[in-house]
Amino acid sequence: MSWDHVWIDVNIATMDSKVAAPYGAITNAAIAVKNGQIAWLGPRSELPDFDVLATPVYRGYQKWLTPGLIDAHTHLVYAGNRANEFEMRLQGASYQDIANAGGGIISTVKACREADEAELFNLARKRLNALAKEGVTTVEIKSGYGLDTATELKMLRVARELGKHHHVEVQTTFLGAHAIAAEYKHNPDAYVDLVINDMLPAVMKENLADAVDVFCEGIAFNLEQTERVLQAAKRAGLPIKLHAEQLSNIGASELAAKLGALSVDHIEFLDEAGVKAISQSGTCAVLLPGAFYFLRETKLPPIDLLRQYQVPMVIASDINPGSSPICSTLLMLNMACTLFRLTPEEALKGVTINAAKALGIEHKVGSLAIGKQADFCLWDIHSPAELAYAYGVNPCEQVIKSGRIIQQ
Amino acid sequence: MSWDHVWIDVNIATMDSKVAAPYGAITNAAIAVKNGQIAWLGPRSELPDFDVLATPVYRGYQKWLTPGLIDAHTHLVYAGNRANEFEMRLQGASYQDIANAGGGIISTVKACREADEAELFNLARKRLNALAKEGVTTVEIKSGYGLDTATELKMLRVARELGKHHHVEVQTTFLGAHAIAAEYKHNPDAYVDLVINDMLPAVMKENLADAVDVFCEGIAFNLEQTERVLQAAKRAGLPIKLHAEQLSNIGASELAAKLGALSVDHIEFLDEAGVKAISQSGTCAVLLPGAFYFLRETKLPPIDLLRQYQVPMVIASDINPGSSPICSTLLMLNMACTLFRLTPEEALKGVTINAAKALGIEHKVGSLAIGKQADFCLWDIHSPAELAYAYGVNPCEQVIKSGRIIQQ
Ligand SMILES: [Zn+2]
Ligand SMILES: [Zn+2]
Repeated sequence: MSWDHVWIDVNIATMDSKVAAPYGAITNAAIAVKNGQIAWLGPRSELPDFDVLATPVYRGYQKWLTPGLIDAHTHLVYAGNRANEFEMRLQGASYQDIANAGGGIISTVKACREADEAELFNLARKRLNALAKEGVTTVEIKSGYGLDTATELKMLRVARELGKHHHVEVQTTFLGAHAIAAEYKHNPDAYVDLVINDMLPAVMKENLADAVDVFCEGIAFNLEQTERVLQAAKRAGLPIKLHAEQLSNIGASELAAKLGALSVDHIEFLDEAGVKAISQSGTCAVLLPGAFYFLRETKLPPIDLLRQYQVPMVIASDINPGSSPICSTLLMLNMACTLFRLTPEEALKGVTINAAKALGIEHKVGSLAIGKQADFCLWDIHSPAELAYAYGVNPCEQVIKSGRIIQQ
Repeated sequence: MSWDHVWIDVNIATMDSKVAAPYGAITNAAIAVKNGQIAWLGPRSELPDFDVLATPVYRGYQKWLTPGLIDAHTHLVYAGNRANEFEMRLQGASYQDIANAGGGIISTVKACREADEAELFNLARKRLNALAKEGVTTVEIKSGYGLDTATELKMLRVARELGKHHHVEVQTTFLGAHAIAAEYKHNPDAYVDLVINDMLPAVMKENLADAVDVFCEGIAFNLEQTERVLQAAKRAGLPIKLHAEQLSNIGASELAAKLGALSVDHIEFLDEAGVKAISQSGTCAVLLPGAFYFLRETKLPPIDLLRQYQVPMVIASDINPGSSPICSTLLMLNMACTLFRLTPEEALKGVTINAAKALGIEHKVGSLAIGKQADFCLWDIHSPAELAYAYGVNPCEQVIKSGRIIQQ
């Protein structure tokens, strides 16, 4: 056998459903990497002979290896700062006071329109570095703070550039239908036309998006408008996702199921009919505990129904300046367990194999098996549950991306 | 003027109540350090002449300077790991199941008794490093997982050693009366005798404690036992604090007030009479949002009453393996605002000047003024509120401890 790198004396949480143990765990294991892929993995005792003099071998001292983490829902490209608004609210200001002071999503849109690509890139890179230090190897990034063609393109270009200049792989999502632009306040359908006829073709022309998302909600786009955008995305050949059932249940998830969406995200108000629908379409449920925490929501997503119908549960950070300025995927594991009562294993699935499913890339990443991309982390922990239990002392010791050892 | 270091072009949140602006802010400011103390601070325009060729000058580019953060309540010296218990509970195990499996505080006590000083030191140092990276320059550390004389001394020795080998200053608190040791389950008063007659004299002999704390609660020590320990501490000349009113109101805070305690900590169940009592004794209220979050408490501490009676509010992490395994003082600022609805300014006071008061060291640290110890941080933020608003991208750029610039 000729390999590029070998790890021995590790415990591996493969997150591969073909491995029967919890976490798909193989203890006293080894893993070998060749040409960016996993060439071999299994019990140390079964490791084939290889050229030990020519191959770098890392000893794990019984630490744990997991797939590289995947954060499947972020808005991490943005400019501006909503600390002032946060402070005003805690000082007793009303939403109207804050709107009058130029706060709310409008302030982020204004800042994003004014920022140039370099500024957006530098701000986003700091956030991506923070995630990378915690073992994230793939991240999804949405547009949606432009709400005009030029700025939506700018945001997606920055997201693409980030992926080129960082070891973390970036999946981009076009979210032109995030909110109705102020200029179209009295004519939302015309804004939807703009998204479909102007933004989307321009996004396609530059190949800037890996998926399309819509915020389907009473305060954003209704079912009909949402379907128009998603149908256009499907015609363009792009997978689709939805911000759905965050504040009310208007049937967004059933629409998502009908159209074969990769995921529905937020879903605090999802009911059994909706859960059943997405279970049949193979749509993932993306849970965002950071926004739940930051907005002090009280309505929990329907975790038990999701379990009952075996819907893949995903945990993501939703990093954004308005409702989740908490830039930490690892902290989301703790919040998923503490606030949503997921088990640590469910939470870890939510940032590995299920997150890969929500992005349509589970053939390539999200679990550890022979032939998959060699994206994994070595953690200074005694059990995988520790990743969800404790927070603050970063246990990430080594990150391997496409077989390459990343020095942090 | 001859100074050791000067910072110019900074905004300073002095947290000094003599400076009228919110946060005691002085914008476009400068600060000079000499022999570990603040030699000058004020508007840049009033900076006296000094020898610019002989003095290192740092330009802050309008970033913000605050006092070094103070975490006034932690249990960060401990061994063992409660991830297993966390996982069991989320899998549906009862407290009895967990107790049968050896979980609960008993497991931490067992691990601490078995660990040697080097092991405890190395575990605690990782936690202290995590806090230090976020700008903490002073931390309080309690014993209380020994519950026998040898282990209580061991924990306090480790805490003292940490302070000697780390730039973060350590204030130690003897908490032998944290729980009734299993050996004394049927004779708690005999355990109190042990604390008073055996542990405390040994702690005093080695000068291992800066304060004494008791967990006064239905499930721990009653009012009479608590008073016996605290009176012994006072006779020994040590300041006192209390874990009080966390699960019920048994009058612990009124006792604390009567005895002149530095602080009462937790206090979710504190009522108006208690608030009034501690306001008259100058006792601080230490709020622990990490434990509130992790234990999913619903009873909020009486914030409005604390404001009304002008009780100094302190925010601390309560880092411990059972109820707050979240090792981040900065995250506590966000939790204090999000969960307890403190303003960002109240939260920042809670980890600076008010935290210093809770430790009885406000003459030396906790705010920035001429003559105080030069403990401060430079943050890459546009306003002090950002420290509480966002989390994940660590904005701490520089830490100055006793005038020395710490490289991280
Ligand atoms: Zn979102
Ligand atoms: Zn405590």
